[in-house]
Amino acid sequence: MTDTTKAANAMWGGRFADGPDAIMEAINASIGFDQRLARQDIEGSRAHAAMLAATGIISDKDAGAIREGLLTVLSEIETGRFQFSTALEDIHMNVEARLKELIGEPAGRLHTARSRNDQVATDFRLWVRDQADAAITGLDALIVALLGQAEAGADWVMPGFTHLQTAQPVTWGHHMLAYVEMFARDRSRFADARVRMNECPLGAAALAGTGFAIDRDATAQALGFDRPMANSLDAVSDRDFALEFLAAASICAVHLSRLAEELVIWSSAQFRFVTLSDRFSTGSSIMPQKKNPDAAELIRAKIGRIMGAMVALFTVMKGLPLAYSKDMQEDKEQVFDAADHLMLALAAMTGMVADMTANKGALAAAASSGFSTATDLADWLVREAGLPFRDAHHATGALVAMAESKGCDLPDLSLADMQSVNPAITQGVFDVLTVDASVASRTSYGGTAPANVRDQISRWRGRLG
Amino acid sequence: MTDTTKAANAMWGGRFADGPDAIMEAINASIGFDQRLARQDIEGSRAHAAMLAATGIISDKDAGAIREGLLTVLSEIETGRFQFSTALEDIHMNVEARLKELIGEPAGRLHTARSRNDQVATDFRLWVRDQADAAITGLDALIVALLGQAEAGADWVMPGFTHLQTAQPVTWGHHMLAYVEMFARDRSRFADARVRMNECPLGAAALAGTGFAIDRDATAQALGFDRPMANSLDAVSDRDFALEFLAAASICAVHLSRLAEELVIWSSAQFRFVTLSDRFSTGSSIMPQKKNPDAAELIRAKIGRIMGAMVALFTVMKGLPLAYSKDMQEDKEQVFDAADHLMLALAAMTGMVADMTANKGALAAAASSGFSTATDLADWLVREAGLPFRDAHHATGALVAMAESKGCDLPDLSLADMQSVNPAITQGVFDVLTVDASVASRTSYGGTAPANVRDQISRWRGRLG
Amino acid sequence: MTDTTKAANAMWGGRFADGPDAIMEAINASIGFDQRLARQDIEGSRAHAAMLAATGIISDKDAGAIREGLLTVLSEIETGRFQFSTALEDIHMNVEARLKELIGEPAGRLHTARSRNDQVATDFRLWVRDQADAAITGLDALIVALLGQAEAGADWVMPGFTHLQTAQPVTWGHHMLAYVEMFARDRSRFADARVRMNECPLGAAALAGTGFAIDRDATAQALGFDRPMANSLDAVSDRDFALEFLAAASICAVHLSRLAEELVIWSSAQFRFVTLSDRFSTGSSIMPQKKNPDAAELIRAKIGRIMGAMVALFTVMKGLPLAYSKDMQEDKEQVFDAADHLMLALAAMTGMVADMTANKGALAAAASSGFSTATDLADWLVREAGLPFRDAHHATGALVAMAESKGCDLPDLSLADMQSVNPAITQGVFDVLTVDASVASRTSYGGTAPANVRDQISRWRGRLG
Amino acid sequence: MTDTTKAANAMWGGRFADGPDAIMEAINASIGFDQRLARQDIEGSRAHAAMLAATGIISDKDAGAIREGLLTVLSEIETGRFQFSTALEDIHMNVEARLKELIGEPAGRLHTARSRNDQVATDFRLWVRDQADAAITGLDALIVALLGQAEAGADWVMPGFTHLQTAQPVTWGHHMLAYVEMFARDRSRFADARVRMNECPLGAAALAGTGFAIDRDATAQALGFDRPMANSLDAVSDRDFALEFLAAASICAVHLSRLAEELVIWSSAQFRFVTLSDRFSTGSSIMPQKKNPDAAELIRAKIGRIMGAMVALFTVMKGLPLAYSKDMQEDKEQVFDAADHLMLALAAMTGMVADMTANKGALAAAASSGFSTATDLADWLVREAGLPFRDAHHATGALVAMAESKGCDLPDLSLADMQSVNPAITQGVFDVLTVDASVASRTSYGGTAPANVRDQISRWRGRLG
Repeated sequence: MTDTTKAANAMWGGRFADGPDAIMEAINASIGFDQRLARQDIEGSRAHAAMLAATGIISDKDAGAIREGLLTVLSEIETGRFQFSTALEDIHMNVEARLKELIGEPAGRLHTARSRNDQVATDFRLWVRDQADAAITGLDALIVALLGQAEAGADWVMPGFTHLQTAQPVTWGHHMLAYVEMFARDRSRFADARVRMNECPLGAAALAGTGFAIDRDATAQALGFDRPMANSLDAVSDRDFALEFLAAASICAVHLSRLAEELVIWSSAQFRFVTLSDRFSTGSSIMPQKKNPDAAELIRAKIGRIMGAMVALFTVMKGLPLAYSKDMQEDKEQVFDAADHLMLALAAMTGMVADMTANKGALAAAASSGFSTATDLADWLVREAGLPFRDAHHATGALVAMAESKGCDLPDLSLADMQSVNPAITQGVFDVLTVDASVASRTSYGGTAPANVRDQISRWRGRLG
Repeated sequence: MTDTTKAANAMWGGRFADGPDAIMEAINASIGFDQRLARQDIEGSRAHAAMLAATGIISDKDAGAIREGLLTVLSEIETGRFQFSTALEDIHMNVEARLKELIGEPAGRLHTARSRNDQVATDFRLWVRDQADAAITGLDALIVALLGQAEAGADWVMPGFTHLQTAQPVTWGHHMLAYVEMFARDRSRFADARVRMNECPLGAAALAGTGFAIDRDATAQALGFDRPMANSLDAVSDRDFALEFLAAASICAVHLSRLAEELVIWSSAQFRFVTLSDRFSTGSSIMPQKKNPDAAELIRAKIGRIMGAMVALFTVMKGLPLAYSKDMQEDKEQVFDAADHLMLALAAMTGMVADMTANKGALAAAASSGFSTATDLADWLVREAGLPFRDAHHATGALVAMAESKGCDLPDLSLADMQSVNPAITQGVFDVLTVDASVASRTSYGGTAPANVRDQISRWRGRLG
Repeated sequence: MTDTTKAANAMWGGRFADGPDAIMEAINASIGFDQRLARQDIEGSRAHAAMLAATGIISDKDAGAIREGLLTVLSEIETGRFQFSTALEDIHMNVEARLKELIGEPAGRLHTARSRNDQVATDFRLWVRDQADAAITGLDALIVALLGQAEAGADWVMPGFTHLQTAQPVTWGHHMLAYVEMFARDRSRFADARVRMNECPLGAAALAGTGFAIDRDATAQALGFDRPMANSLDAVSDRDFALEFLAAASICAVHLSRLAEELVIWSSAQFRFVTLSDRFSTGSSIMPQKKNPDAAELIRAKIGRIMGAMVALFTVMKGLPLAYSKDMQEDKEQVFDAADHLMLALAAMTGMVADMTANKGALAAAASSGFSTATDLADWLVREAGLPFRDAHHATGALVAMAESKGCDLPDLSLADMQSVNPAITQGVFDVLTVDASVASRTSYGGTAPANVRDQISRWRGRLG
Repeated sequence: MTDTTKAANAMWGGRFADGPDAIMEAINASIGFDQRLARQDIEGSRAHAAMLAATGIISDKDAGAIREGLLTVLSEIETGRFQFSTALEDIHMNVEARLKELIGEPAGRLHTARSRNDQVATDFRLWVRDQADAAITGLDALIVALLGQAEAGADWVMPGFTHLQTAQPVTWGHHMLAYVEMFARDRSRFADARVRMNECPLGAAALAGTGFAIDRDATAQALGFDRPMANSLDAVSDRDFALEFLAAASICAVHLSRLAEELVIWSSAQFRFVTLSDRFSTGSSIMPQKKNPDAAELIRAKIGRIMGAMVALFTVMKGLPLAYSKDMQEDKEQVFDAADHLMLALAAMTGMVADMTANKGALAAAASSGFSTATDLADWLVREAGLPFRDAHHATGALVAMAESKGCDLPDLSLADMQSVNPAITQGVFDVLTVDASVASRTSYGGTAPANVRDQISRWRGRLG
């Protein structure tokens, strides 16, 4: 392909006495990474060629040759037979140069009424749109896995923590559903981003639009966009779609990091709340007994690189004048890396959640410790003894202190003990001091009661269809 | 208020032998900043009290006293007569302690069936929701200012830049409209975020919901939320609404930084494309002749602090186990600062855009230089002489080189010169080589033609109503 | 001060027909935050005035009046009697305007041969230098607290974790000393940054230096700088010292977040490795029994705002042309906030570490579980039975599996059990299977043996003097 | 290599019933990127084997076989004949497995008294140390290029800008030297980081040190480290060296972005201050006349990915408990990418600076416009007419306003004009109103005078040796 390379380099290079030297080539060429846009590039070119023919700008024959030739190029690329050339800089010129080899002169008509600026904006938008779809698919699978866990343990009690201190008992199912809420919000965020990005830059040409009587609605429709973008300068300058994708991915990665942190803590010898499957654990080269939650740790870390990618692109875009600046070539690698690792993290989390075993007994034992029904006692005092909440709170504090000094739990205090703090307390109080009674009582909407958990599972299953 | 302070500190402090010392108080207290949530806190408490009465959990009389007392507290705060106490830690306890001073015992019933965890989540959500609305209002004003500029110069020619090099002529109106597109996307991003955040955490209590038969729909509705949040653990753990607000703000700040950068460059002595008003410029203490675009520079910088705030909150949230952890207290200052500076930057940009004067002559002169109609020449060769685009591109390159070596512009070449490169060129070519002809020809949808610009202005004015 | 305000505003404003309006004042004025530089500003001005007199540029009498007047201003500020004016924009003009009120005409001579650009660079550098010193002092205190813990528990065994799984036993003292290493590196990073920043910008004037025969060495020396900066453009454009301070602070904050995370986990009911003092814990408004590690959580979160500040300033500085741009006014608030919270976090961590109690029994119990001496067994097989490490590793794995299936620990296996896996095992193996033997054996340099720990404590105490 | 792969997988996998599935392998394996540590890994292992023999832990014969075999492996890798296996996870196990194929049983003795935890910490530290050296070399080359420009134009006048507005004339050489100062600070920052990171983790083993009587000083010395690290937990947990490298790289990238921004602006048609060489420019596919500063734009963008990498690693490290957590595997790709692009950006900037041509005439013309000697006039009034600076400033402002209204520059005003504002002005004033006089006068240390510039060039040349 050497000759073509030289010729194609001359696409813009004729004016220059010297060729760009090695450093320049290294910093300038994007083919090392933008070859991932090959399918999108060829789709976009095929749509463009069809439109050029439909509007009479090029002949049907030329368009046919171009469209056919592009399929050949795509097939060469997808089967690994295509030789990418750094001298040809990017995917657009690599494809076009090969097309010229394959079909000759008509290849030179493809670039009519467009520019690399609108071409790359279109390719990249198509790629990011696919990733938004992939994120939604990945999130759905994770939600299904979480619902499976929630259903299995809808009424298993466990400690609800604040500050990693036992606060009140909750149900395992309720805890799983909290993550369903988070990942469902992520899903809607990707869906919103997809709507907003689904406008077509193609036809903006270099930056000003074109004098050719092109039909931008046609190309937009052919590529599945809702409409063409309304301003050509914006069309080639905008990378909001990538920033918004990265922001949605970062929020999702925060959720993954929180669940991952819990899995790491829960699988410690001290907690033993869950057992991860061998498939998602690893061993140690020096400590044969170890079973490490590597997948959880790696997922926890992904927020780093995903947020890092977001910060990178925000920083690149800061202060760029319109329209296209070469700085924007730094957009793709960040999004590629963030998307790859988000999808990987979602898949790994889905597998880990589906595979893991909650240790019902350990959860229940932990739930009962730490005076976790103190709030239930305080609420009882409000409800049954008519105390203002703040007074009930104080009385409960005194009883906790008493139990702590006796080395027992709240239900182990005698009624006399109770009444020594507040004489209005009756035997009935003991009905609310067990963790099962506690969770069963929390039936307010959104509360942790098993009945609520089952309702929410049904609601989610209905929504997922 | 000393006595109350001590008493209120005892709200949770009874168990502790020692009081928190000065360092602990300094790191722990949030009243220094969360007093900005006073109005939201009181609104939330008033709605909660009304619901407690409606559901019979507290008496109407107590609820009335509470609601009335809270209005008094609000009035004290808004008129600067309220004395905030650091010992009372946060806005919630400051308000409640003062309420107790004002109305006595019933104050202690307000906190029934809720916790500071759902209370602060509600307050903060209300605050951020207001800021989303404020951002939308600010963006609308900026869009109006940009449309004013676009209308004034719908057909003024200026250089369209890529790489800050003259590429093709565009119209001033078209350039202004590119920013309208960006800020309109920002608007829709804030609107989406607002929808997603508009669910009510109140009633989630500490983390598990409550056994009191509360009516979460009632409080949600009273506070303008679309519905209560469906999971109590999520309700107190979630800060997505803040992250998404910060992400939308950061993207908006990128747009502001790009326009600001252009204004700084355009107001340089070398460009002189615009003259900023005195109102948005400053002088120098040592160089009396200077007229500095300080407002533009400060706006350009705002992406720093806004993205910094976003990074801060993402980092805080990374890896936090459910449910509430004290780390999350670091959420507010970041959002307060980012929101304040976003609103300020929007207002300053609106004023600057409304006030600035585009220098029509300088724009036109710059538009004509740099062989800016080379693409029009290449397109003419495709359209009129039937050349493939790539060949037309090469012929144009040769003509540009010829003009450059002669020290003239493209329209200054003779027909013979032209034909020496390609004999198919006719006199007609000179019709497309002026910048006015160039912009007028770009009538493809989204193109820079004055007619398009006017259409888009109408469309936008219609949408803004 | 109204009249002065107007007059001083005229310092640069004479050229402008309109006054900056409210938005402009809000975005432009820095006095709201840069008043924290008052002391540094006055020190710098006093040094400048003395130098102007020494070089004969102003009279001794004027310099005397200026220097005396500045002390009065400082005293007014420090006692809260100074009225800052937003119309006067910044600390420099506020101070100079007040000086003029106090001493009249000579005040106008102070600004000879300098500019606000070099003045603010000097002030801010002095401020950051103080913070580097404060960080070093804070780190020293924290190191002392950690050494205290290390000494108390030099030979207490605890689990050494990897992946939060028990790996090998270590000593409490050794774990504490790991943090001493980290904080000592932080200390040296601040010290290096201090050296690099300790050059004086004063005398660079606006950006080009000055034609007055000033003595920059004199002012540098008077302000404790090592030397004047060598390039006037750099002197007013550089904010490296702030970036480097923020980077050092961020690394330190990472260390704090790691220790804080451990304290949160260790104080959970499941771990109970440490008990935090009441002074550094808080309670809950609804769960009276809670004792929350709030200080640890807040410290853990500080990396968010400190790194956020760093990102903010990096972003602000990106792509700024020389020399001074107004964007740089955004530098101070970020550094102020990061420094304040770093110092607070260091102080709180120092207090928490000094106060906390390690639960020796719980640590020891945890250390013995989880087959934590498996590596010791493998090493014994290498050392005593001559197995290659990889084979020893396999044999150990088999023994761990055997113990696990029997529900016992490694020392509980019989010699026969052992020999069934590898016949070369002798009774001697049981000597290395206790955790105390394990830690005592790890005497390689840097290892966890109590003897090593005590050596390191001595080394550190020697270095701290 | 299939059989070996299975065997080697069993290094830690014997305990697991299932093999890790495809997702787990994808998220867990690091060989895709850590193969870049091959040379460091083998160096480290060779030093370790030599030490094991010297201390009698393994035989000289085994050590000889290991050391020889490792050289073979290295040669296979460097000549591309090595087949990396994902099942073998990482570079360490890939190398060891191949070593076993080559030399058999002795290979199993290499891992005595070490772990992958200290091994990877050592490898990575060696790699980063090389990059610190490479950065220093790259910075030196850039400084030399800048000195070349400075020397050529030591006395060329150009506008000194603040706010991108002409402020005062400066010399081209002085402007170049401002960047020399910045890059020299970068150099010293990398040098400091190198000193701090130059301690050897090897021998820390998994986390606790080892009971084998190893000689850590020997391995440290063999690998060029100053000393072994003093705490084994810290040795395997620490990634400060990577964070500090990234911070230094980010500050350097800010400097590069500032110079790049200037080059982009300076090569615009409106400025024409510099002409970039063809080697560091590119053309446009649709606008044949374009000569785009692509290299400068790409360099400007690099701060994005480098700071992004820094943010990523800070975020990963946040809140990690000791000792090794798998999250830390995310460290390498960030540093690899940041280092690669820093070196590329330094090389490209060096080439661009060395090749570029400053347009002396355009610089001089711009320097004379915009009343750039107003400060010289004000200073003259102070010096010669004895006005206080503030009064001189006002008088100058009035004269600038007069000149502006007359459409002339300051030197074009008549003496009578001058005296109408201040009668003390004499003919002598005209001596300071030319830009050449202005720059020549600024001889204060660090000032822009050509003489100063030449002194500084000599000083730098002396320091570079």
